[in-house]
Amino acid sequence: MSQLLKEFIKNNVKIDEDGLNQICPCFKPYNFSKGELILSKGEIPPFFYFVLEGCLRVYVLLPDGKEFTRYIAFEGMFCAPFPGFVNQRPSFAFLDALATTKVLAISYHDFQQLLKESPAFEKIYRIVLEKSYVDSILRIEDLISLNSKERYQKIMKESPHLIQLLPNRILANYMGISQETLSRLKSSH
Amino acid sequence: MSQLLKEFIKNNVKIDEDGLNQICPCFKPYNFSKGELILSKGEIPPFFYFVLEGCLRVYVLLPDGKEFTRYIAFEGMFCAPFPGFVNQRPSFAFLDALATTKVLAISYHDFQQLLKESPAFEKIYRIVLEKSYVDSILRIEDLISLNSKERYQKIMKESPHLIQLLPNRILANYMGISQETLSRLKSSH
Repeated sequence: MSQLLKEFIKNNVKIDEDGLNQICPCFKPYNFSKGELILSKGEIPPFFYFVLEGCLRVYVLLPDGKEFTRYIAFEGMFCAPFPGFVNQRPSFAFLDALATTKVLAISYHDFQQLLKESPAFEKIYRIVLEKSYVDSILRIEDLISLNSKERYQKIMKESPHLIQLLPNRILANYMGISQETLSRLKSSH
Repeated sequence: MSQLLKEFIKNNVKIDEDGLNQICPCFKPYNFSKGELILSKGEIPPFFYFVLEGCLRVYVLLPDGKEFTRYIAFEGMFCAPFPGFVNQRPSFAFLDALATTKVLAISYHDFQQLLKESPAFEKIYRIVLEKSYVDSILRIEDLISLNSKERYQKIMKESPHLIQLLPNRILANYMGISQETLSRLKSSH
């Protein structure tokens, strides 16, 4: 079950079996059904998730009632409503499952414990943080600087799985364009 | 000169003099004058900075020609046009000095070397990354959910140094409001 997590860790840090056995048992399996709301705004996120199958989404509600999709995690990616989890404060964002989803989840307590005790986990977390932070900035730069067609072409080139796996409603929302524009872009490619 | 950096490190990780002497000599002093453009869009950021005195700003140009201030670093804070530095690619953002500024700068090569060789530096960087990423999300959540008055009240409460130290033009830009609105808010408090 935790084979995918082990592979992720071994691909990113030098680690032996003892090191893996210190980290992996802290992650417990959970299943979510398609469309399940995992965490609402105002709740304190208890877990940091590693996706084994399916897809998790972090989104916020805009003042006009529309959703803004902040982050999407597929197989092999970590996910949490981040500031809420790190500071153990009520989350501004929601977390839901876009498909039938299997995850491994680590509690905040175990997470902090591992950061203290496992330099390998510290490095893994640093790598995940760095990528997430960079990706979030790059995404905003794309939203600022690219038009709809350019955004679609960039996703086709760099993240074609988003186009294959996400429903149109979510993909359009993630790209900051209307569903009609997305349909037009899809049909013209 | 590197006393402030040493203090920052010692406040965040357990470290002895040998550990400090591994990290601190990698940081070299630089001075910038007020208003100096340190890095332009399209350039690859060669350094990660630690501010000793003054203030650095990372900003992007919007399609309408206006600036959007992404990040501001005062004394005791790290700063870089982040995705460009981490991936060693041309930066989308600009970096300038808002005041006469003294920094310590570490090159990309030395930075990567330290990450490999110093677990203390890995932890420091992880802590800086976590705070930067959380702050960037919280700031966007504030821009989405708070009106001008609420943003001003929050900054007064949580980051009053921004109001004291930044020129009105930059502070208004950072808050996503007009200078006229900022002047009104300042005079009514």
